[in-house]
Amino acid sequence: MTPGIVIVYTGEGKGKTTAALGMVFRALGRGLPVAVLQFVKGRWRTGERLLAARLEPEGLVFRTLGEGFTWEGDDREVHARAARGAWSEARDLLARGVHRVVVLDELTYIVNLGYVDVHEVLAAISARAPGTTVVITGRAAPQALVDAADLVTEMCAVKHPFARGVKAIAGVDY
Amino acid sequence: MTPGIVIVYTGEGKGKTTAALGMVFRALGRGLPVAVLQFVKGRWRTGERLLAARLEPEGLVFRTLGEGFTWEGDDREVHARAARGAWSEARDLLARGVHRVVVLDELTYIVNLGYVDVHEVLAAISARAPGTTVVITGRAAPQALVDAADLVTEMCAVKHPFARGVKAIAGVDY
Repeated sequence: MTPGIVIVYTGEGKGKTTAALGMVFRALGRGLPVAVLQFVKGRWRTGERLLAARLEPEGLVFRTLGEGFTWEGDDREVHARAARGAWSEARDLLARGVHRVVVLDELTYIVNLGYVDVHEVLAAISARAPGTTVVITGRAAPQALVDAADLVTEMCAVKHPFARGVKAIAGVDY
Repeated sequence: MTPGIVIVYTGEGKGKTTAALGMVFRALGRGLPVAVLQFVKGRWRTGERLLAARLEPEGLVFRTLGEGFTWEGDDREVHARAARGAWSEARDLLARGVHRVVVLDELTYIVNLGYVDVHEVLAAISARAPGTTVVITGRAAPQALVDAADLVTEMCAVKHPFARGVKAIAGVDY
């Protein structure tokens, strides 16, 4: 069986989620089943989601966690519950071994907010089904996660169009 | 019409071509026609190519330039001819306006080898059909290209598995 590795795309620059989508593209090409779990709200109407729906027959599961949860508002208790629920789904999925590539998009977000402890993440990674490659994205990846990963790329922002007031473009930015 | 922007993914870290593939994923989701032109040899049997073939009906053209050319061997004249031919196709495609996203994967490679002048690249970008987003990948993007781009991310290598002797994995690395 192909070995699985742990990949982290972090940093302030753009391209983290985008690179994770590229991993999906490549893995599907090889016929590997892939799951993408997104850990942030507001990802319901994206270009990637639209193609993902059409790629289900290729073996792609694409979910925005927190759907069915309430991420809206300022209630930290409510957010924590949503994050915990989402994380529990991710952990189960890593252990199950159905998907050969599992993308945990913006996972660092809920870790950095303190909703999920990084050691829980490391334990779930260690306990994952053999041959599962894990791709984790998000800003400010905790050092313990970087230490545990096989491949870490920091996306460094050299130039960012939003800084010049350029608006996000459908099909390019989302 | 959606404006087009110029995106550069550069740096020594992994994730440049991968992020470009993510752009393809997103754009196809929005129903935008996409062309990917790869400027290096040895890209004939990749996971991305396999999925790309199945995504042709979605409006994707995926070509490894230099096919039909001879990139093998050490003859600089022969390589230069292949690079020039490939570049000429790319320039035509940018001007034509059929594809809303055009990926020029590893373009910096043939620029840095001196086969195509960066000012030719800038001229072709300026002359591109309105609404075309251009994504250029490759190490050591020339400063003039960085200056001309709207979005530049440098993929910084924090940790690279090949450095530890881990072999490339089908569906993950290619």
